[in-house]
Amino acid sequence: MSTRIYNFSAGPAMLPTQVMEKAQEEFCNYHGVGNGIMELSHRGPQFTEVIKRAEDNIRELLNISDEYAVIFVQGGASMQFSMIPMNLMLPNGFSEYADTGTWAAKAMKEAKLFGEVKNIATSKETNYDRIPVIRHWKPTQGSSYCHITSNNTVAGTQYHSFPEKMADVPLIADMSSDIMSRVLDINEFGMIYAGAQKNIGPSGVALVIMRKDLAKRTPANVPTMLRYSTYIDKGSMFNTPPTFAIYMIALITDWLKEKGGLKVIEEINDMKSEVLYELIDKTGFFHCPVEPGSRSKMNVVFRLPTEELEAKFVKEAEIGGMLGLKGHRLVGGIRASIYNAMPMKGVEQLIDFMNEFERVNG
Amino acid sequence: MSTRIYNFSAGPAMLPTQVMEKAQEEFCNYHGVGNGIMELSHRGPQFTEVIKRAEDNIRELLNISDEYAVIFVQGGASMQFSMIPMNLMLPNGFSEYADTGTWAAKAMKEAKLFGEVKNIATSKETNYDRIPVIRHWKPTQGSSYCHITSNNTVAGTQYHSFPEKMADVPLIADMSSDIMSRVLDINEFGMIYAGAQKNIGPSGVALVIMRKDLAKRTPANVPTMLRYSTYIDKGSMFNTPPTFAIYMIALITDWLKEKGGLKVIEEINDMKSEVLYELIDKTGFFHCPVEPGSRSKMNVVFRLPTEELEAKFVKEAEIGGMLGLKGHRLVGGIRASIYNAMPMKGVEQLIDFMNEFERVNG
Repeated sequence: MSTRIYNFSAGPAMLPTQVMEKAQEEFCNYHGVGNGIMELSHRGPQFTEVIKRAEDNIRELLNISDEYAVIFVQGGASMQFSMIPMNLMLPNGFSEYADTGTWAAKAMKEAKLFGEVKNIATSKETNYDRIPVIRHWKPTQGSSYCHITSNNTVAGTQYHSFPEKMADVPLIADMSSDIMSRVLDINEFGMIYAGAQKNIGPSGVALVIMRKDLAKRTPANVPTMLRYSTYIDKGSMFNTPPTFAIYMIALITDWLKEKGGLKVIEEINDMKSEVLYELIDKTGFFHCPVEPGSRSKMNVVFRLPTEELEAKFVKEAEIGGMLGLKGHRLVGGIRASIYNAMPMKGVEQLIDFMNEFERVNG
Repeated sequence: MSTRIYNFSAGPAMLPTQVMEKAQEEFCNYHGVGNGIMELSHRGPQFTEVIKRAEDNIRELLNISDEYAVIFVQGGASMQFSMIPMNLMLPNGFSEYADTGTWAAKAMKEAKLFGEVKNIATSKETNYDRIPVIRHWKPTQGSSYCHITSNNTVAGTQYHSFPEKMADVPLIADMSSDIMSRVLDINEFGMIYAGAQKNIGPSGVALVIMRKDLAKRTPANVPTMLRYSTYIDKGSMFNTPPTFAIYMIALITDWLKEKGGLKVIEEINDMKSEVLYELIDKTGFFHCPVEPGSRSKMNVVFRLPTEELEAKFVKEAEIGGMLGLKGHRLVGGIRASIYNAMPMKGVEQLIDFMNEFERVNG
């Protein structure tokens, strides 16, 4: 694809070129129907097949049992920050959150509207440069749930192991920025969720996978559209779902299956991040502020000697066809987001550019 | 467009062919950037321009003053059914709803979770075959707000005038199925809202236009993503918005402006519906169950002598390239949804088919 460039944006992010081209091809005329999938009724045969395929693909890729529901909800991960305590906080109960970054803190803040919230582990005092050592903390018996953020997009950290499973305390993970990037045992979790716009689709839909029994906790006064049971009972079709976004998830999970599933994708993601961190660590020019054992394989953050050089780096990378490398506005620096759709070739191009940039400016 | 067909679905519904073709053309490479708009950061220059253009177009088309906010919210109109009472019900107050159909009743049901709800006018006892005569009812002084459903998609009814404006009682209208189909004085309303997937875009986004002062009513315990002020203060970008859906709204409102605005669209919509109702009324074969003064210009519902003939009608229409004519599952019959994007030619083709069907089966 001569016209396509490498987009290292943290999300919305680049999607697989093969998927984009397929969606483009059938955009105005889905499977010969004479209208695009976006224009067809969500209750018609075409979309009924699409949403079933999206769910089936997700179940197959993550090996999800019938004990769990797979649903599509609007409002992004931020809406989940509210829905989780609204539905799952036990009466007069408390919940626990690990505060590992901007989004983890936002999730915790919302929960405080619905009951007591305990900050069970944090790395705030070291600027969120690490995941607090897992063996030093665990959920408390009696907690409504324990919430973690598996990958922290802003700080560039990621859990490489998870807190031990504790009976009666469901572990809930916001996996917005690393969903389907690696093999996962869903049975270790009560619920995982993810805004789609990084690894599995466009913005406008969140994937929620939850143990069905948890949906029974919801108090009677929670509105229809904010109850998990509404989505579970109606197959995410109580009202019109975001059909095109779900269609894109179906195509992207088709692509993931064709690639060989999550084990293969994980190996590619390991390679992509390893070569980047290797380059960063071997020079005195680039510097990664994240503690080595907590580094994210999705969002590789690093600094250059000065902010002026960072600005120059971002600008020259753009000219070279590499977009979105500017770090999050809260922390500055450089961030290379290398989700599933970023091919090894994109990372190689970035590495060549980094080497050349250091040679000229180092 | 030889491959495009006429889709009379109630929504998601057909979008203007010109818009679909433009979106297809730049799907993988937006304005030469090398990625699709769907893949680009919502904080980047491309989407920043898109969301501004969508808002500017809407303000221009509906002649909206600065006193009103224009925001994009996920969850469809159904989420608004909850957000409205959650944000706008006055402390220990009550609200009023006109029950004119399935969706109006759903909106009313949700409000009961947040306070007293009065059913101010209804046509339920006549199977929602009409809008209750406007001069027979008006909002009560002291009501938190008065909620109406301007067009009833299932029953095929529409308000052709609105209840008189009453100071202190904001009129709120669900305009999901007739937004931007006709000229409207926004100043008569405290708030209007619409799921996009009928007249102005794909599913996955709702347009909300509200008087800014109303957003100050929200109680402190309402979660961030459910507060109107979150969307107003952050330009609908507190978190990642449904970027592609908003992009489609920008394109469709561009198209509406090119067509000449809402006055021109209204004239076309008037013609489209008039020719259909004229045909229905002149025969004993077709029959419209809706009281003449309340008939919808968006959803033309009618019956045939038997259910068998109705099934045959739907099937043969499909073969003739006219999709989505089956009535809503709750009421049966035939429903021709003729939103803005349905051209006069589509209606003419339907009329030819109806005449021929009556000739053969009448």
